[in-house]
Amino acid sequence: MEPQITQRIRSTEISAYVGQRVELQGWLHAVRRLGRVTFVIVRDGWGTAQAVVEEAGQLAPIVDGELQPESVIRLSGLVVAAPQAPGGVELHQPAMEIITPVTEPLPVLIGKKEIKASLATQLDHAVVVNRHPARRAVHRLGAGVMAAFREHLNGRGFTEIQTPKLVASATESGANVFAVDYFGQKAFLAQSPQFYKQIMVGVFERVYEVAPVFRAEPHDTTRHINEYVSLDVELGFIENHFTVMAVLRDVLAHIFTSLSERYPAELELAGAQLPHAPATIPHIHFAEAQELILKLHGVDVRGEPDLSPQDERWLGAWALAEHGSDFLFVVGYPMAKRPFYTHPDPTRPGYSNSFDLLFRGTELVTGGQRLHRYADYQAALAARGLAEEPFATYLETFRYGMPPHGGFAIGAERLLMQLTGAPNLRLTTLFPRDLNRLTP
Amino acid sequence: MEPQITQRIRSTEISAYVGQRVELQGWLHAVRRLGRVTFVIVRDGWGTAQAVVEEAGQLAPIVDGELQPESVIRLSGLVVAAPQAPGGVELHQPAMEIITPVTEPLPVLIGKKEIKASLATQLDHAVVVNRHPARRAVHRLGAGVMAAFREHLNGRGFTEIQTPKLVASATESGANVFAVDYFGQKAFLAQSPQFYKQIMVGVFERVYEVAPVFRAEPHDTTRHINEYVSLDVELGFIENHFTVMAVLRDVLAHIFTSLSERYPAELELAGAQLPHAPATIPHIHFAEAQELILKLHGVDVRGEPDLSPQDERWLGAWALAEHGSDFLFVVGYPMAKRPFYTHPDPTRPGYSNSFDLLFRGTELVTGGQRLHRYADYQAALAARGLAEEPFATYLETFRYGMPPHGGFAIGAERLLMQLTGAPNLRLTTLFPRDLNRLTP
Repeated sequence: MEPQITQRIRSTEISAYVGQRVELQGWLHAVRRLGRVTFVIVRDGWGTAQAVVEEAGQLAPIVDGELQPESVIRLSGLVVAAPQAPGGVELHQPAMEIITPVTEPLPVLIGKKEIKASLATQLDHAVVVNRHPARRAVHRLGAGVMAAFREHLNGRGFTEIQTPKLVASATESGANVFAVDYFGQKAFLAQSPQFYKQIMVGVFERVYEVAPVFRAEPHDTTRHINEYVSLDVELGFIENHFTVMAVLRDVLAHIFTSLSERYPAELELAGAQLPHAPATIPHIHFAEAQELILKLHGVDVRGEPDLSPQDERWLGAWALAEHGSDFLFVVGYPMAKRPFYTHPDPTRPGYSNSFDLLFRGTELVTGGQRLHRYADYQAALAARGLAEEPFATYLETFRYGMPPHGGFAIGAERLLMQLTGAPNLRLTTLFPRDLNRLTP
Repeated sequence: MEPQITQRIRSTEISAYVGQRVELQGWLHAVRRLGRVTFVIVRDGWGTAQAVVEEAGQLAPIVDGELQPESVIRLSGLVVAAPQAPGGVELHQPAMEIITPVTEPLPVLIGKKEIKASLATQLDHAVVVNRHPARRAVHRLGAGVMAAFREHLNGRGFTEIQTPKLVASATESGANVFAVDYFGQKAFLAQSPQFYKQIMVGVFERVYEVAPVFRAEPHDTTRHINEYVSLDVELGFIENHFTVMAVLRDVLAHIFTSLSERYPAELELAGAQLPHAPATIPHIHFAEAQELILKLHGVDVRGEPDLSPQDERWLGAWALAEHGSDFLFVVGYPMAKRPFYTHPDPTRPGYSNSFDLLFRGTELVTGGQRLHRYADYQAALAARGLAEEPFATYLETFRYGMPPHGGFAIGAERLLMQLTGAPNLRLTTLFPRDLNRLTP
């Protein structure tokens, strides 16, 4: 017989019920024995709560170790203030019903603060490991990032869009795309919503998208996964890339404020360090950044078309020392290393109206102003030896009127990785996809 | 020279500025001549506004027809109350600067209330056609549906998840999946987040996802597209499918309330008819529904394992006549036609704890209670002759403790189609993908 499910409270609400009997429902998270007393920790969808067992009674299957962790139970008890207990309360005189018993030991133990298993084992058993409170906190922070991102932009006239992930041609180049058999035709998975978000500036003027993107990059590093969530923004009627940078600064500031206000427990569990976003994030031009590196570190990187990871670390350290900022905009990257739709700097030949945002010395966001005139696109494609035909849809937008516009993309997992200090990007997504991993 | 972009107001704010000069920026939407007066309609990301031109002056390129529609302009003028004008105000003494001129006529005219072009032509030029106010209103309502869906669930302890779209095996059957070349391995595009959302009930207890799903169904109908947005919900610790149905009712009620409060202009432009969701949506058991059809229409469909579209229309009409409801739950569909993870009705052999929600006589949502015990899954797979191995990840969840749970999925485009009365599902998504269409 199924025990009837009745009214219950969440573990996170328990401290409001001191002196009353309450019922929790959840998973048998952990059992700790201390002399003749047994502490039973139950985990529900939001947190954990502790029951103190002095006489086994109905809890005998737990105290005796017969019921395995992760069994689903209903646990009732009297809420008692207990300053030494996690959360300051615990359940006394507990009673229990078993909803779904587990009869096998777990493949990875998740009842302690640390998970003691190799990364590969953890990822193989993500189904179970994602239940661990610290791991779960990372994912809930991820949901918080997306919610705050949307909330901020909805309040500023942006419209959320959903653009196709099955596309007829690669976005920026033929490389690093996954091919799909589309009813006998060849299709690709979208590497980015770049073209579509620009097209949609023609419709809604200010748009954003939160959606998966797919990169067939054959890199096996701690910072690569092949399917990730991209937080994309694009807006029209900008002055130049600085308009875009101001929007990005405000989005990030709102994300951090929102996380700190709404997710204090998750921030603590995940060990996250929230940065402060200054009212104006300092910026430095690419060329001056290279001069600065020469001056401060004696390394001459002038003439290089991009910054190396070491360059970025140096610049991050400089921003912290000089401006007290975890963030630094590097602006004006050379046109040579930017995609064809990048808007040049009208005042400085060879450089662009683009930016990278460095966070604690690592690139977090890329963005900039785009070309908006049809003739400029034709010239840009021709200059790179690219035919117009594969870009026909995209070009149609510019034939029929586009304002100056620009935008940026934040990799949701990269942001989470840097906020939580996760040692591997794979730990910031529920079920990572990499060169060797398509499951779970 | 780029005209400098300065402060401006949105077209939707204009009525607050009567008696003042304001500046709008947007697209030249339409030009109408009435004797010696020319009406110039400018469209920005949010709406449209009308300027009255008596002396051409700076607006000569528009009045003379030299500047093509969709040119991007800056238009300033004095705001004057004009009861006969759309929105009750218009701009007098207009001045203009051209930001981006359009020099070619549009492929599809979008300056009038109706778009006069075949569906194929409209879809070919979606880049332009999506700018049409009525078409854009449909998409903005789509964004409103997603926002209200999330808002309601966030307030009830649900966590938003993002699950992989690249998967190692098909979700429910080997049919109708798109194959992907994944670094030389064969992968598939997820048909639904069904398995992952159930897995995540083990983590967060209540989850939802808004994400694309991919169906390789080779159907060329007005109601099929091959990539669509699925609004998925799954929750644990339910009593049975009626717990899930109550959540669904509340989600839909919130969506309709939110749209009516926040999108009045879009509802009018899109010609949408919002239904009322009764406090309790009436329900009828599948078997009784078949009896009712026999009684009312003399057609004996008893013994059929599913309802036909005609059956659904009859039931929809009955719900409206008998209960005054646009909605009707049909519950208890035969197990034979439901997927293997469906929970049977413990009281009525052969029937299930599942439901369809009919909206105005058409299926809108499918859902139900799922199996939650490992042994039940093993038996269900064996009964259908399916091996356990391809489902190893999914089954791991049930080996390690799952509560009674269930959920549902709403097709975002189908909901929009039924709300707006769109004649073709393709018109409810920005860039549809179908059997013959991978662009734009």
